[in-house]
Amino acid sequence: MVGPENVSIDPADLACYGADAGFVTGRPDGVVLPATTEETAAVLSLAADAGLPVVPRGAGTGTAGGAVPTRGGLVVALTRMHRIHEIDRRDLVGVVDPGVVTGDFQAAAEREGLFYPPDPASLAVCTLGGNAATGAGGARAVKYGVTRDYVLGCEVALPDGRVVQLGGRTAKGVVGLDLTRLLVGSEGTLGILTRLVLRLVPMPPAVATLAGVFRAPADAAAAVGAVFSAGLVPRCAEFLDRMSLACIGGDLPFPVPGDAGALVLLEVDGPPARVREEAAEAAGRFEAAGALRVFPAAEPGAAEALWAARRGLSPALKRLGRPHKVSEDVCVPRGRLADLVAAVEEIGGRHRVTVLVFGHAGDGNLHVNFLFDREDPGEAGRVEAAVADLMRRTLALGGTISGEHGVGAAKRPFIRWETGPDVLDLMRRVKSVFDPRGLMNPGKVFPDDADVG
Amino acid sequence: MVGPENVSIDPADLACYGADAGFVTGRPDGVVLPATTEETAAVLSLAADAGLPVVPRGAGTGTAGGAVPTRGGLVVALTRMHRIHEIDRRDLVGVVDPGVVTGDFQAAAEREGLFYPPDPASLAVCTLGGNAATGAGGARAVKYGVTRDYVLGCEVALPDGRVVQLGGRTAKGVVGLDLTRLLVGSEGTLGILTRLVLRLVPMPPAVATLAGVFRAPADAAAAVGAVFSAGLVPRCAEFLDRMSLACIGGDLPFPVPGDAGALVLLEVDGPPARVREEAAEAAGRFEAAGALRVFPAAEPGAAEALWAARRGLSPALKRLGRPHKVSEDVCVPRGRLADLVAAVEEIGGRHRVTVLVFGHAGDGNLHVNFLFDREDPGEAGRVEAAVADLMRRTLALGGTISGEHGVGAAKRPFIRWETGPDVLDLMRRVKSVFDPRGLMNPGKVFPDDADVG
Repeated sequence: MVGPENVSIDPADLACYGADAGFVTGRPDGVVLPATTEETAAVLSLAADAGLPVVPRGAGTGTAGGAVPTRGGLVVALTRMHRIHEIDRRDLVGVVDPGVVTGDFQAAAEREGLFYPPDPASLAVCTLGGNAATGAGGARAVKYGVTRDYVLGCEVALPDGRVVQLGGRTAKGVVGLDLTRLLVGSEGTLGILTRLVLRLVPMPPAVATLAGVFRAPADAAAAVGAVFSAGLVPRCAEFLDRMSLACIGGDLPFPVPGDAGALVLLEVDGPPARVREEAAEAAGRFEAAGALRVFPAAEPGAAEALWAARRGLSPALKRLGRPHKVSEDVCVPRGRLADLVAAVEEIGGRHRVTVLVFGHAGDGNLHVNFLFDREDPGEAGRVEAAVADLMRRTLALGGTISGEHGVGAAKRPFIRWETGPDVLDLMRRVKSVFDPRGLMNPGKVFPDDADVG
Repeated sequence: MVGPENVSIDPADLACYGADAGFVTGRPDGVVLPATTEETAAVLSLAADAGLPVVPRGAGTGTAGGAVPTRGGLVVALTRMHRIHEIDRRDLVGVVDPGVVTGDFQAAAEREGLFYPPDPASLAVCTLGGNAATGAGGARAVKYGVTRDYVLGCEVALPDGRVVQLGGRTAKGVVGLDLTRLLVGSEGTLGILTRLVLRLVPMPPAVATLAGVFRAPADAAAAVGAVFSAGLVPRCAEFLDRMSLACIGGDLPFPVPGDAGALVLLEVDGPPARVREEAAEAAGRFEAAGALRVFPAAEPGAAEALWAARRGLSPALKRLGRPHKVSEDVCVPRGRLADLVAAVEEIGGRHRVTVLVFGHAGDGNLHVNFLFDREDPGEAGRVEAAVADLMRRTLALGGTISGEHGVGAAKRPFIRWETGPDVLDLMRRVKSVFDPRGLMNPGKVFPDDADVG
């Protein structure tokens, strides 16, 4: 029994559970917080009987509206299911509830000498279930891959109240269709993840972090390219543009030169001696690419300060005094990074909108933030046009409209541009296998006929 | 136009295309070798009009009968589509036809300083399309993952003759349901892969290989566990049991001690200095685990000799003089390796069958080979019972009935034991989305009602 204390129709709660970290909002008919798989399945069963839409939710840190009840219904928040069931050093796996906070799991793995690499910027708050549902990425994807690469198995509560186990806890497995990976990134449109089996790797013994400041974004992109061409695989290669730098410059542990137009934050890991060598080699490549300043985060706390500034960037955008933000997460093939940065600059100029870019340069995955005032209809319209332009340009560069946030409600209008009608139709029909009545997270991922595209 | 010279109903051809490297056989009604995506799609369209089953085939090196036309129909062999379209150093991707031989692609990548890690033992012959269709693994999966982890995108000819593009060439991408990964490992039951976009990584600058000989399999398993516990991630950790050693002992570049009961072949890669350190550390762990002999493959050619012996093991089993072989590829959680080896020994004894074990110890993925004479009905029956026992024991250890070969026709009778009826039903219905008429590779993966389980 979920119990009345874990069900709410209080207007204040409904408002809370009607938003995520993005701009899409909605209002649920009710909120339920189950504590177990059985309770989750029972809630789904009752919702099915009532014909009520179900919107699964972790910590609500998504930015695409995936967890927002845009069509009402029941928000099923998994935050009470937050137990780490196992961390097994011999099998190199962890077994967790969906509501476990990503950073808590990383800390628990670390205490066993193990490492869970996926690191969305919101890792101090976001949950593993949400990470799996969106297929979350992060800065370390360059070397370690994304959440998808770490989900070995999962338990799923289906919309009709049945519970199934997918995948397992083996390193390899090819039995039948890969439904495990189908659930990863399905954004709550197929069922609710009630347990995850996650792959762990040995903790790398050492890490070295350095920052390079460049005059122009193209220099920064060339520096990242040079590091890869040297055969290095940094675990992170983050890019910040001029305006991002302006936002968090004061939080960095070194003074930023006045003519700085871009920053690259690079991190390597591995055995201590090798890490020192690689950091030195990367620093050399930065110098050769014309860096204005190379800052090796050698002092205690310096690396933490760099990362705190980087992870604080999204909230820090408020300092720019623009009330609203649309944050995209387009991704292009690695070699087209500089082209994407140039395209963004051009789009910003042409539509006369404030645009700020940072993100995962090593993956070609950039966060493009349009800052504006929604009350100004002219500006809001220009941002809308700029976003559509960004999607078109990204696709023309061979990229994808979402590298790690997912489609949610926000990018639904553009999905068909990327998939085409036939693939979208296949996806819809696969969804129908799991959710024939269309009750799981309606209004997400799949566009309405009225949407553009 | 495929052209008459690329279509055959010649009995000799039909016999050739009626088998793979395993024991399942069939006989197609015809064989077609298309040269392009368009030709492949046209063949599918014609087959659909005629209501003819279609069996996609690469090099036919599978062992589970996945490419065997057990219900007749048209074998569509992709071997004429063998062009490497691109190897892009900036994007770190390769774009290939499905019929490209895995080893050829690896060599081409290496010429660009890049590395394509997946290495099924048949890599000199097998094709990338077959690797993707089965979700092939290999020895290097310990560190680098399996084929699934390298397929960024694919082109698929659907059973109705349409062609769709899935995924892309970006490092990240979470747009819509992950149909790319659904196709990987689908064993030709959904469509035909006509092009692949594969992820590449920088070539590791150095490799070191060593072999350890142990008195008992449990010592070998403990040695592998100790290497992982030390925080090392070897790129391969291969296990051979006593009888495997007896088979290829003469091919090894060192004399095998008489009381040898197991061999571990270990390989590390990375920067030269680090590789030397890691190899020395692994050797130390082997000694500490009671190795009878540690052989560092330091001399030129020694590592190649070790691998040639390992890769030649499957064919070398013929030397044991038993005419038939059933080769399983069960996989258990890493920590249960010794339990699996003990279970196999016990099963062999109880059913009085000759059994021989080798495989990927680092992944808990073992190849269990039952050697017998099919003409001896008593022995054949005992092998059948032993195989069923192996599946049960593997599942009881938390494992999977197939780590890397796939279900094909051979393991179809057991799939339900692993998935349960609900998951199997979901898989069937997902297949129906792609192949509503059931013409794609019928009689594979999904069991008939008559099968056990």
